Formats: sequence, structure tokens, C-alpha cells
Amino acid sequence: MILWDKPREECGVFGVFGHPAAAEVTYYALIALQHRGQEAAGIASTADGRMYSHRGLGLLTDVFADVPLQRLPGRAAIGHVRYSTAGSNTVQNAQPIVVGTHQGNLALAHNGNLVNARQLRIELEKQGSLFQSTSDTEVVLHLIARAGRGSLVENIQAALRQVVGGYALVFLSDDALIAVRDPHGLRPLALGRLGDAWAVASESCAFETIGATFVRDVEPGEMILVDERGLRTIPPAARVPKRLCTFEHIYFARPDSDIDGWNVHAIRKQLGRILARKHPAQGDIVIGVPDSSISAAAGFAEASGIPLEMGLVKNRYIARTFIQPSQELRDAGVRLKLNAVRSVVDGRRVVLIDDSIVRGTTSRRIVQLLREAGATEVHVRIASPPYKSTCHYGIDTSSKGQLVAASHTVEEIRELIGADSLAFLTVDELMSAFGFAPGSAYPFCNACFTGAYPTPVHDMEKLANETRASAAVAPRRATTGVSG
Amino acid sequence: MILWDKPREECGVFGVFGHPAAAEVTYYALIALQHRGQEAAGIASTADGRMYSHRGLGLLTDVFADVPLQRLPGRAAIGHVRYSTAGSNTVQNAQPIVVGTHQGNLALAHNGNLVNARQLRIELEKQGSLFQSTSDTEVVLHLIARAGRGSLVENIQAALRQVVGGYALVFLSDDALIAVRDPHGLRPLALGRLGDAWAVASESCAFETIGATFVRDVEPGEMILVDERGLRTIPPAARVPKRLCTFEHIYFARPDSDIDGWNVHAIRKQLGRILARKHPAQGDIVIGVPDSSISAAAGFAEASGIPLEMGLVKNRYIARTFIQPSQELRDAGVRLKLNAVRSVVDGRRVVLIDDSIVRGTTSRRIVQLLREAGATEVHVRIASPPYKSTCHYGIDTSSKGQLVAASHTVEEIRELIGADSLAFLTVDELMSAFGFAPGSAYPFCNACFTGAYPTPVHDMEKLANETRASAAVAPRRATTGVSG
Amino acid sequence: MILWDKPREECGVFGVFGHPAAAEVTYYALIALQHRGQEAAGIASTADGRMYSHRGLGLLTDVFADVPLQRLPGRAAIGHVRYSTAGSNTVQNAQPIVVGTHQGNLALAHNGNLVNARQLRIELEKQGSLFQSTSDTEVVLHLIARAGRGSLVENIQAALRQVVGGYALVFLSDDALIAVRDPHGLRPLALGRLGDAWAVASESCAFETIGATFVRDVEPGEMILVDERGLRTIPPAARVPKRLCTFEHIYFARPDSDIDGWNVHAIRKQLGRILARKHPAQGDIVIGVPDSSISAAAGFAEASGIPLEMGLVKNRYIARTFIQPSQELRDAGVRLKLNAVRSVVDGRRVVLIDDSIVRGTTSRRIVQLLREAGATEVHVRIASPPYKSTCHYGIDTSSKGQLVAASHTVEEIRELIGADSLAFLTVDELMSAFGFAPGSAYPFCNACFTGAYPTPVHDMEKLANETRASAAVAPRRATTGVSG
Amino acid sequence: MILWDKPREECGVFGVFGHPAAAEVTYYALIALQHRGQEAAGIASTADGRMYSHRGLGLLTDVFADVPLQRLPGRAAIGHVRYSTAGSNTVQNAQPIVVGTHQGNLALAHNGNLVNARQLRIELEKQGSLFQSTSDTEVVLHLIARAGRGSLVENIQAALRQVVGGYALVFLSDDALIAVRDPHGLRPLALGRLGDAWAVASESCAFETIGATFVRDVEPGEMILVDERGLRTIPPAARVPKRLCTFEHIYFARPDSDIDGWNVHAIRKQLGRILARKHPAQGDIVIGVPDSSISAAAGFAEASGIPLEMGLVKNRYIARTFIQPSQELRDAGVRLKLNAVRSVVDGRRVVLIDDSIVRGTTSRRIVQLLREAGATEVHVRIASPPYKSTCHYGIDTSSKGQLVAASHTVEEIRELIGADSLAFLTVDELMSAFGFAPGSAYPFCNACFTGAYPTPVHDMEKLANETRASAAVAPRRATTGVSG
Repeated sequence: MILWDKPREECGVFGVFGHPAAAEVTYYALIALQHRGQEAAGIASTADGRMYSHRGLGLLTDVFADVPLQRLPGRAAIGHVRYSTAGSNTVQNAQPIVVGTHQGNLALAHNGNLVNARQLRIELEKQGSLFQSTSDTEVVLHLIARAGRGSLVENIQAALRQVVGGYALVFLSDDALIAVRDPHGLRPLALGRLGDAWAVASESCAFETIGATFVRDVEPGEMILVDERGLRTIPPAARVPKRLCTFEHIYFARPDSDIDGWNVHAIRKQLGRILARKHPAQGDIVIGVPDSSISAAAGFAEASGIPLEMGLVKNRYIARTFIQPSQELRDAGVRLKLNAVRSVVDGRRVVLIDDSIVRGTTSRRIVQLLREAGATEVHVRIASPPYKSTCHYGIDTSSKGQLVAASHTVEEIRELIGADSLAFLTVDELMSAFGFAPGSAYPFCNACFTGAYPTPVHDMEKLANETRASAAVAPRRATTGVSG
Repeated sequence: MILWDKPREECGVFGVFGHPAAAEVTYYALIALQHRGQEAAGIASTADGRMYSHRGLGLLTDVFADVPLQRLPGRAAIGHVRYSTAGSNTVQNAQPIVVGTHQGNLALAHNGNLVNARQLRIELEKQGSLFQSTSDTEVVLHLIARAGRGSLVENIQAALRQVVGGYALVFLSDDALIAVRDPHGLRPLALGRLGDAWAVASESCAFETIGATFVRDVEPGEMILVDERGLRTIPPAARVPKRLCTFEHIYFARPDSDIDGWNVHAIRKQLGRILARKHPAQGDIVIGVPDSSISAAAGFAEASGIPLEMGLVKNRYIARTFIQPSQELRDAGVRLKLNAVRSVVDGRRVVLIDDSIVRGTTSRRIVQLLREAGATEVHVRIASPPYKSTCHYGIDTSSKGQLVAASHTVEEIRELIGADSLAFLTVDELMSAFGFAPGSAYPFCNACFTGAYPTPVHDMEKLANETRASAAVAPRRATTGVSG
Repeated sequence: MILWDKPREECGVFGVFGHPAAAEVTYYALIALQHRGQEAAGIASTADGRMYSHRGLGLLTDVFADVPLQRLPGRAAIGHVRYSTAGSNTVQNAQPIVVGTHQGNLALAHNGNLVNARQLRIELEKQGSLFQSTSDTEVVLHLIARAGRGSLVENIQAALRQVVGGYALVFLSDDALIAVRDPHGLRPLALGRLGDAWAVASESCAFETIGATFVRDVEPGEMILVDERGLRTIPPAARVPKRLCTFEHIYFARPDSDIDGWNVHAIRKQLGRILARKHPAQGDIVIGVPDSSISAAAGFAEASGIPLEMGLVKNRYIARTFIQPSQELRDAGVRLKLNAVRSVVDGRRVVLIDDSIVRGTTSRRIVQLLREAGATEVHVRIASPPYKSTCHYGIDTSSKGQLVAASHTVEEIRELIGADSLAFLTVDELMSAFGFAPGSAYPFCNACFTGAYPTPVHDMEKLANETRASAAVAPRRATTGVSG
Repeated sequence: MILWDKPREECGVFGVFGHPAAAEVTYYALIALQHRGQEAAGIASTADGRMYSHRGLGLLTDVFADVPLQRLPGRAAIGHVRYSTAGSNTVQNAQPIVVGTHQGNLALAHNGNLVNARQLRIELEKQGSLFQSTSDTEVVLHLIARAGRGSLVENIQAALRQVVGGYALVFLSDDALIAVRDPHGLRPLALGRLGDAWAVASESCAFETIGATFVRDVEPGEMILVDERGLRTIPPAARVPKRLCTFEHIYFARPDSDIDGWNVHAIRKQLGRILARKHPAQGDIVIGVPDSSISAAAGFAEASGIPLEMGLVKNRYIARTFIQPSQELRDAGVRLKLNAVRSVVDGRRVVLIDDSIVRGTTSRRIVQLLREAGATEVHVRIASPPYKSTCHYGIDTSSKGQLVAASHTVEEIRELIGADSLAFLTVDELMSAFGFAPGSAYPFCNACFTGAYPTPVHDMEKLANETRASAAVAPRRATTGVSG
């Protein structure tokens, strides 16, 4: 019933240094990043050489429902919201992970995925490292702990030279905040200013929420270090091509975020306009699938002159504790996530705008909903190219076998979802929304559409399948700690 | 920070008779009605002469988080979601209320407000009735219990002859479902069909969700009785003028609901079109306040030709357990409910569409947000007339003293909220959206705009103020019962 | 496995008037009375004409786990711990019950049982009273509310003239504490002094705990009224014979309580001495079943000269949330409540002292435990007469059909429990422990041993069976309220 | 008020291999061991190469209140109950700790304390080991992980060669249960048989509870390995003198346990008899402090001929969520843990038997209670020698500065606690209860009485003080995991 048929972002990260209410600021920033992960959340703070942390399963507001933020004192804090990708959804895998090392306490919040985490872990275990979670974030910490006699920054650099993948990492030590973005820039990370304090966040919308100013994106490969002496930036040793994730713009990010210089809402609206021009449809009304496709639908409506209508309504009250309907009720047609608005749809030819099709099941259901509500025709237009290949850099789609576009033509997908017509954007059209002419070089990762991965991907596909098997064991739980 | 500056709907009700999974159906229907009240929820069911109930504070999904629906067996059930108006927000005031009478068990779910509840209660207490809640719903039950030797239907009729106000009542006895709408139709109630079962709901969107068919609105004053022999309808003894609530259309109801013959989204879009024609504004973009004003904004954009943009983003993850920010952070500009999208707003003249202004504080904040995000002008257009008088029929606004339009001119309000221009609809313009020409008779209650109440209102204003003082004592709690 | 094979006391009550921390005092007093009921608990307090209450299922410490006692302000409070007898174990049946009447708020905590509650309820329902619980306590409140124009004291008196049964009632109104004991004194109630404040409690051990002084027992039929003017006592209109409950001394009460002039531990020890003299046994060691039979065992050991040993150990950590063992483990011999101490028992002839035998299942199990631990003989001596008749005054035993002594001879019971010998006290021997010579009149109710009830008992036996069928539906829940 | 004035046992451990319901068996065994630690509990099980675990703060029944035991599948499981000694009381410090190593998953439950844990941790951190808790148990796991290329047994042996202290360790790997007792036998560990399965437990009372048979104690230094091939025992490489903990017998262990050949109850009773003979007192009654001193009191009464009475009653309902009384009520005399029985005590000369005096505060309070209840004289007799030195092997007493006997003579202590007379056993008398003649060698650790530690103790005293400062941060929490 409540099939989740979208790529699922794995995480949002945040960090702040130099603010008297660091944990509280982190809490509100994570509220703004909650769309990036609703399965677990946590905050760690540092004061007087001691590390305080609390993390748990569920929404941030649930995890902190009975834990006063005063229990996380100090002027520096990092936080994390998580949608489980690698590793089961247990509280051990919630972040930030906090460990004790010979250099003091170290906490880490991580957005992304390492493609060689498995091999590194096997190697580390052979050398006597103990793992207490199944997340690949712990691998990074072990590499740092074993990096030797250098400074923390040097040890992080040494560790990161060994890992391959997409990541935005935010570290908190007893006296510094350190943030690093992977060399390709596969995962986003932004820098902000809040009075005298510095902050980093997965998306700039977090700055808006806490009253901070968005300064700039952290550069691919850049390391940002903030301590009592202020902010320092450490550029990457060697530059590699930028490979920014287009799917952040297409689906994940909040429309009010600016990522790598583009506003998310503006890009989506532009994708809608391009769709209208390149893949027009005869319809009486344009309907976007709420919430992520509303911008694209508005662009389509604007460019096509077909009026935009609210023909689908999303139910906002389906929380974690929601009781799944019995098979009997499902068969009888209980529909919980989306309702079609009969008065809007009845007797109309509908142009339905969606941001992507992953497995196709949701699209089929929506087309059916619209027809049952009286739509005479349903023309589906997708504001991205066909999604054909699994992402290995931090996005939890299905395995390749479940991606409908991996094994079906557009016509076959059209038939499968029951639409009267169906069209996708091409990669060139997608790139044109960012201002790149057809055939020109562009700084994006489009591997999910093209299969051209910017890094070696090792045995990721195999691993993804295995991991999923072990998910969803634990109830809503939390864990609180003090170290030092 | 999270000021709630809208009229707050008090309740949604639902009932079903003749379905093997009656409580489960009620659960999903209440999910669709959750926007009508998030402070308490409950379900009662009946089987074999015994009444089962569970109710508690919080969202429905929280209230039933660890209570299997199988504990509420039977083929008939009623449910309720509540936004506390009269009576404190304690679990005793959660509904359905279940009582034992000489005619067996009786459960009641109530949307609305009785203007003479207080006098009736004093009278009943004098006669030896015991009250276990502070809700006026309990008054109705006492009147029924004392109505004498008649049938349950006759006793309900006798009781309702004594009450004045707006209500949609859904009763569950050991063998029947009874639904009644007040004589003026001040509160909505709809009838639906789910296979062989009959259902009633505050809004038709609940039927869509559970796979039921919307049959028709329950008529003002009509009583619907469903038992094993089927459905019977009992018309009102005497007809009084219809006084349907316009605010359901303007703000409360879900856009996919049809109420009394009008689709909510369509009315809102039409209000936006009329606004554009009658109260035009010079702007570069149109922005609606999410979520309720998006339809009106789309209508305004369509009629004015000014493009609709998503310039405000609402945070969807502010749950009941949300930790309020400290004064310090509030002063520093933490903003949690809405973010302005700088890339959209910066350097633009914004036409801001909102559905209503109650106290004015939210409007001021939004105008400020937009200006901080770079808007060069902000022209506010409100898709309803100035809200000047307290509602006494089930809508929890502030007391009259807090209604900004009760004591300020439009120009004063404009100044107060910091807009460059401000305009409201007139009542005539509002009515024209429903198809009623200026000056013609219309079947609506516009008392909140005009002060012309369709019933005597007794000492309601005084009561409303007193009641508020005692609210908000209890933590999230629930209560479960079996009677009979 | 964890068969509960003892009569179960239904309630403990407490009240205090004139103490600045009335609710807190009540909390600690209820801790001392918790042995009288572990299924539900609650406190109500009054301040400035408003009544505050919180009650829920489970131990007092659980019910108040996240409810600060400051939420129950005022200088007067009453409290209740409950073992469900009449009425299901739902939070609606938790006490104190708080109602609104034309004379203001009224809260009631009740220990005992009314034998004519059912008829009274039917009559009240016919007159239009609404019942929101299934407890007979609510009946008392309705009778008071309907008693007419008198003062609260007069109305309570009028109500109590209509009820028959055993009760200790503690009322809290907006300005007074009122305590009443039933005319026969079937349920205990004691009066204490705490500085300037007055307190009443089911047992005097509560006074010890809160640092109060035990003043005297409340007399059968006496009403105690405490308000700002001080304490007044209102004697019964007509005296009836005292019928004090012997089972309070035999099993229920805490050994450190004094009830009606006798110390509980002293009585039990005396019963053990009498057992040893009248029903001697040849054994190597005396073992008492912990905890209630340790006093009697000490008396038996003292009088017989056989050494007292700790041969059975009770597990103290079986809480409400305990997971019941699977049938498989039960069959395999998991034993959770009691362990036999092999080193003590092995090769010995054991004299096992227990306070009573109700169904016989526990006795059989203990005898078996001792034999498995190597006891060569087990001689069971019971420090009370055979329990043959159901109590109708507030003690939840089984229905008569389950009382093993109702249908079996002593020899048959001996065989059933597998003992080498078995003896009970006679009623005369029991009475002699209190100082009453054989054949002389005594002021006790021994109905459970003799079947001679001091009041008519109506259809109680039938009711008891019906009620049990509906018990145990709800999870641990609580409810909080403010009235007035 | 509720001063805890006893040495606090830190842990109980249990393990079972070869039982179809291994986790369930562990649950009930831990119930029987719950007296050894009430602050945290957990269970880990293994099935098909995967490790399942759940642990949390609070009583076992609370930790598993909403976690079905079916979530811990498999035929082998280990469990732990904890009273925090080293390391704060956070869920990270709850056990069993589960880690991933190059040899697969490994879980560990630990009772005891390592005196060189701190130095080992610093060394390990320098080598790149990451610590996720502050417990010294994690040190053992790191040592094993780094032990190299040997088998798991060899690696454990290598690790244990580096640690100094008292311990009973129970490991669970993917295919074996391994139990080890420290070379001196400072902490107890017993072996049992449950059908075809083998079990180990801190105390034999756990076997009684689960229907298992107590086979024998695990020998000091012995390692027990149980896998699908059966049980193997690996004797210590080198024998060191037995140094069994006398305090297990004096205070910690359950009276129904047999430890190292002595029954706990029998030893205690014998200590009471010796007290009576060597340190007689003139009294009318003997009273033991419940529960741990009842056996000794019975022995004293038997040997002295003075009758044993129940003059102190313990409140059994003070749970973890108990609300501490305000200072005001404390000053006013609220007494929650123990009540004196006036009817028993009044006018009597009391001989009070207690097992030990640690800080003296509880003793003073009890003497005062008895005097307030009318005792004319109070003669205190302690069934152990003066407790003068901190234990470093797993018992959480106060630091040496808080041990009253470390800095006061017996006469000074007598005065401090307000007794009429006071006497302790001598170490020789204590040893004689176990059958060792004065001056003869005995296999016990009496360091807490003599200061003669059987191992070097490093900087333990300093560490103990530091650690305590960081305790008690977290609310009741739990964590659940699946590894492998």
C-alpha cells in the first residue's frame, strides 16, 4: 500500500562551532534537514574535553522527546538524520558515532556511501579492529585511529586517501569541528555563518531555519577546520573532476536549498518548462505529484499554458507508528498516501508530472487513482531521464533488478503504468536546465541514468542486496552517552 | 515562534456500520481527517452488546501506537479527532465518550460547539447529573439519559431540541449508528457507502481514502440511523435556514473534499481568481502561504498572468514532541515553520496570497521573511473578508480582543504586518465564488466576517476565555475501555 | 506458572488535609499501601476550587513516572491503589474518581465492595444517570449527586443509607476531606496526625512511612470530616455489630500495621504458636511461605522448638511487564516465583507454614518444589481455617467453585496438594489468637470460613463471575485531569 | 533518604548453549540474578552466523517490556544484569557488548573488575583501537581482537594473560559459548545442565529457576567451552591460590545459592550463631535487617534463645521510577525503605543483626527508627568484620574515605550510629563459619576487611572516584542490534 517507490536519501549532516547553544542550534537545523532521513537521528556535543551524545531511531522530535537539550552542553555540536542505506536500521547504526581514541574523543556524522567499505572492514578486522555497528562510517573512524602519529587533520587525510565513494563528513573532536566533502562532490555540503559561529550543513535550507547566512558550498575535496582560532580551509591534494549529484536537484533536496550554485526549486521549474517544450502533451490540466513534483508541474503549466491544478492531495499524517492496513482492506481499495480530487479530475485530460520513476509501482497506482476519479486521459511526463542504474554513493534505490527502466522500454513502462502517453527528459535536456549545451562537458554525476560511475564500484550491487535483508528489526530506541 | 495564528478546527468525526473491520476502517478514515484536529483521537466499536474504546492525546498514529486495532472488535465503529475548543485538553475530554445508560452503552463523537452548554450543565448538575469531563459533548449524553422512556432516537431528538449551536454528532449504540447534523448545517457531515456498509464523515475525503463512495451530504437537521435493517433517514421536524460554514471552504477542509456541493479546491482557486480581478496587484511573482493558500494563489496567478512560484517552504517535521526554541534563539532569528526561498524571492515584487488574517502575527512574520529574502515589495491579498467576530460553532479562534480586524482598519492592518499593500475580499465577492450574486440570499454563515450569528450566542465569549486558561496540563496519554 | 492463588485485596485508600505538600505526602503513603493493590493507582488534590487528578494502571511509581507531583497542588489530597475486583481493570476504573456536581468537584477513593451496587446502578440508569466506569464506586457518587438539597455531609449520609457492603470511603471536595467506614467495620480505616494535618489510611503502616502518628482506628459507621475549621466526627445513626475482617490480619495487611487494636505481625505469630500447640507436626525444620507466612512460621518454630529455616526464596523482580514463559518452558520446569533451597531442605522433614489455601494450586506446587529439593516429608500447617465461601466485601478470591475447601475434605486437600499431613486452624482457635474464648461472641466477620455473612449478599456470586470475564484488556495507561 | 549504604554488586552473568529457546531461558535465569544488578540488562543470542542483541537501562522486565524474545533467535545465548561500577551508567556500557572481528561476531558479558584496565586502554588507543564505551569489558575484547592468528580460545587466553583482576566472563561467538573465571576465583561462576544444554551462571539459584541442575562451580582459572561437539574444559596454565570472595556469602548472593561448596543461607545462619556465642547481647528480641540479614538473625536467635521477631518491614515497591522526597518531607521524617513495627519493638531491648556496616548512615537511621518505635535499648551485632578497604574486584563500595570503619574505632562507630552496644565478627570468626580454624590458611579474599589484596591494585582507588563523577546521565533506554 504505502510502497516507497522513490530513491531514498540516506542522510543529512550538520555541525556548528562557536555557539553558546550549539546542540540547540543543531536540533533546529536537523529539523530543516529531516526530509533527508527519518529513520534515525542524533546529536553530539563537546564541552571541557568530554563528549555528550544522544541518538535513536525515529524522527528527531521523537528521539529527543524526553531528553532535554541541556544534556548536550558546549559550544560545538554535530548532528545527523539518517535513512538507512548500508547497515541495518538499528540504534548502533544511528549517528553521530562517538569513539575514544588516543587523541581524545571523536564523533562523526556521515552522509554518503563508501564503495570499498567492505574490503576495508575485512582488512581492519584482520588487524584487530573491533566493529560495533554495520555502518561504513565506522570504517572511517578505524582508519583514522590507525593512521598513526600525525595530527587529527593529518590522520583524517590519511584515512580518506584509502576510501572511495561519495561523502560529506562532519567530525567533532574535543576542540574542533572538521568537515570534508568527497573529491568529486558527489554529496552536497554547505558552509554558513551564524554570528561568530561557523556551521556546515548538507543543504543551505538549514541555515535559513536557524537564522544563519549561507556563505558558500564546501568545495569537492575541501576540508574545513573550525576551532577556537577560527576557520581554516585545506584544499584537496589533487583535483579530480566535479561530479555533483543531479538527483539532489531532481528529487532529494528541499526546494528552498541552493546547491552548488543552483536553486533547487528553480531547476525543477526549469525541468518542467523543458518537458513542456520537448515532450508536450494534450491535456486540460497539469497535475504534479506532491510534494517534490509541484515545482516541475508549475514549470510545465507555465510553458504549456495548460492550467495547473491540485488534483492529488497527500496525506501528511502517516507517521512512523502508523498501522499498516490489512490485506483485506488493501484489496478493498484503502489508499492512504495520495487522494485524487474527483471534482478537479473528473472528465479531464490530465498531464501528470512526476520527478522520476524508479520501480513504476507508484506511477501505476497514481494513474489508476486519476482514472478512478474520472480522468479521461492521463499523460505522464517525467522531469528526469529513465533511472536505469543503482546509485552507489549514498542513495538507497532498489537493486538494479527492481529498476523498471533498467529492463523496459519507455513504451513498455507506459503500458505497465497504464498511461496514455509517457515521456522522460533526455540527459542532454536535463543538463540544459543547468545551462550546459548538448554535448558539452558538465560537472555532474548522472550514473543512475547512464551507468557511467565516476569511481570504481567494486561489489556494491551485491552488498546492497545483502544488507537490505537484515533491516527493520528494532523498535524506536535511543541511546545516550557521555565520554571522556 | 510557532505562533498558531489560524482559526483552529475542533474536530473530525467518522462512523461506519456493517463492515467486518469497522475499527480499522475508522482508523484510516481518521487519518484522512487528521487535519481537523491533532490534539486527541479515539475510536469506539461495538460487538455483542459490549462497547470497546480507546482514546488518547496526540495524533491518531501515536494514540494507537501500541494498541492493536483487534482490541476494538465488531462491525460498527465511530471515531474522532480533536482540536480542543471547549474543555481542557485532557484525556477525559478526548472522544468518543462512552457511557452506560438504562438503554445500554452509548458512545458519542462530536464536531461543533453548543452555545448553551454551560447553562444546560448547571441545570443538569442541579438535578443530580455527574460530569466527568469539561466538554459540552457530555451535556448531550446527559440530556439523552434523562429524556425518559422513549426509544434512543426519540431520546436523542428530545435532547437536541434543548441544545443550540453547531454540531455534527455521530452516536454508536449497541446496535445502531446514528448521525445528526445541526439544523443550520453549521458543521459539515457527509454520507458514504463502502460495499454493504454505510459510513458518515466530516469530510468526503475520508471516503476516498477508505475506498468508499461519497453518496451525499447529510442535510441540515437530518438524522441518519443505520442498523441491521439498513439505513433510515429522519428529516428535521421544522426547517430553518441553511447556514453552512464558509470557513470550511476558505481554510479548514482538505482541498479534495466536496462539502455541500462545492469542491474545496475549486472554491479556493475561484476565490484567488476573484481576488486577482477585484483586488489586483503589481508583482513579479505570486506566492501562496503553504499549504492552505496554494489553491487561491494558483487562481490568482492564472487570472492575473503573474507567474506562480514556490517562494515559501513549510517544514513538515514539527511534531507534537517538538522542543520549543529558547528565547535567545528566537531572538536570534530561528524560524521553524516557514522558510523563504531567497533565489525565488530576491529582487522580486511579491504578491503574497493568504486565506485569512486572524491575529496578524503570522502575516507580519511572513512579510518580514520575504523582505529578508530580498523581496522588493510585498503585496498581501487575502482570499476572504476581514475576520472580525469570534466563531461560537466549533472553531477555536482567539477571543474577539485578539482578532486584529475587529479593531483595526485594513490600512492599519497593512501597516501592522508591514505590507506594501493589502486587500481582502468582500462578503459579496466571497459569496460570488459560490455562485450567489451580490445582494441575493445565500445559505451560509458568515458570522465571523459580519457578526450576524444565526443563533443566540449566550455567554460564549466569556466562556471561551475562561476555558483556555485551564488547557494544556496533561502529557500524551491514552485510555482504553470495555463496557457492557 | 505464576498462579495467583491468594485472596487479592482490592484497594488501599489514603487522604490528608492541611499539609502544604498534600499530594507528595499521599504519594509516599500509597507506597506503603501498595501491597493492597498493584493494578492501578491515582491521586487527586484540590486547590482554589479546582480539582487535580492523575491515575493510571500499574504500580504507583509507574503511574507517576513522568508526572511531576507539582501538577497536583493544594493542601488536601486523597489517593488510591487498586486491585481490580468489581469492574474491569481499565483506567476508567482507576481511582480516585473525580466528578463535577452542583456542589462543586468531588473525588472519591474506595476500598471495599457494595453488594447491592448492581441493583442501584440499574435504578440510577433508569433515572437518567450516566455511568462512565464499571466500578461500584461510581454508584456512590451518583447517589450523592441525586440526594438533593442537603449539605455534602447530609448527601453522603443519604447515599450511604442506600448501600450495603464493606467500605472505607475517602472523599475530597473543594474544601473538605471526608472519610467513612462501613457500619460493620468490614474494611479497615485508621486516623493519623501529621503536624497540623490530619490523615486517614487503610493501614497504620502508611502513617509510619510519612512520619505521622497513628491516632486511632476510625470506628465502624463513623464519619470523619476535616476542613479548615479542623476535625469533626459524626457517629453512626444506629450501631450494628462490629464485623472486622479477620483476613486482613491473616494475609492482607502489612505486618507492621495495627488494625482495630491488634498488631498484624503479633496476631500472625500467635496463630503460628496456636498451630504448633493444637496441630503439631514431627519435622526437622519449619519453613514459612514468604512473605506473608514468615510471622506464623516464627510462632510455630518458637512454640514447637523446631528450628525456623529459610527454605523458600521469593523472587522479587517479577514486575508488571514480566514476559510469561512459554508452555514449553513451563513444562520443562521453569519456576519463577519461589525457589526451594536445596541445602536447607535436602534430607529434612519439613513443616511448611502457609497462611491460607484458596485454590490449592500454589500449595501443591510448593510441596512439589520441596520434595524435588530433597525434603523427605512435608507437613503442611495452615494458619487459618479452611476458606470455603467467597468474600463479598472487597476481597477478590475465586468464585466459590474454585475454592478447594468448599468441595473437599481436609484429607482430600492433603492428597491433592501431595502433603504428608495437613491441618488447619479452627475458627475457635483463630478467635483465640485475638483473645476470644471458644463459644464467646466476637466482633469479626469470618464469612469466608463459615458462610455466615453479616449482610444480605444479593446476587454477588453471579456478578463476580461475570465481571472477571471482561478483565485485563488495557495496557499500562494513565489519565490526568483538571476540573473546576 | 534512600541512602544506599551497602556494597553494591556489579553484575550477574549467564550463558546457555544447546537449548531451542536459549534467549527465553536466559531471560528467566537473569530474573533470578537480578539482585546482582538492577541498573542495566541485556541478552545476546546467535543463529546462523548472525548475532542478535538487546540491552538497556533498568530492570530486565523493563528492558524487554516491548521487545519480544523471539527477536533473539538461536540455540545459544548469554545475558547480563549490571550494577554500574567502572564506567558510567549509559546504555553503551550495558552488556553484553557485541563486536565484529575477523573471526566473526563476539559477545561478552562480564562480572568483575580489572585493576589494570585503564593502562591497557591507553595502550590500545595508542595502537589505533577505538573505544565506544567506558567499561573495562571492552578492553578484553580489544585484547582478543589484537591477539593475532590463533583460535578464538587461544586469543582469549592471550588476552587474559594481560589482565589483572576479578572476573567471570561469558563469551558467545557464532558457534560457541566460552566461560572463564579469574585465576583467584574472586568472582563466582557455576556450571549447570538443562536437558542436553549446558549453562553457566553467576549463582546456582539461576539453575533452580530455569529447572536446570547445578553441576559444579567453575574452577578458578578454568575455561569452559561449549559448542556443537559438547563441553570441553581448559584448566588454567598455572595455579594461583584461591581467593574466593567472602562478601558474596555475607551480603550479595541469594540465600538459596550454593557458592564454591557452601550454601549462602547456611553460612549466614552460622555467622549469626557465632555472633551470638562470641558477642552475646542482653535483649528481649532479635531483629534482622531485611532481607539480607534475616538468616543471620535466625542463627543468632537460635543460639541465644532470644526470640526472633519481625520488627522492621521493608517496602518492596520502591522502583527505579520512584520520585525522591523533597528535602522538606525528608526533614519531616518521611521514611520509605524501612518501617519499624511499634507493637513489636515498643518497650523492648532489641538485638539488631545486620550483615555489614559500610558508611554507617543506614545503621544510624535504623537505630533511630527503633528508638522512635519505643525500643529501650538497641544492641547492634554485625555478621562480618569491620569493612575497612575498598574492593577492586567488582564490588562498588564507596571510596575508602567513606568507609566508616577505615577511620573509626568500634566504639566511635557505636557512638556514631547511636547504639547501646556494637560488635563485629573477627576475620577468624568469619573464617570459622566456613570451617577454617583460627590461624589456618583459607582460600578466601578478605581484602575489604584486611586490606591484603591478592593482586597488585594499581591506581584503582583514584579511578573509582573519578568514574563516579560521570555516572547517572541517561534515562531508561535500550538498544537492539543484529550483526553479521
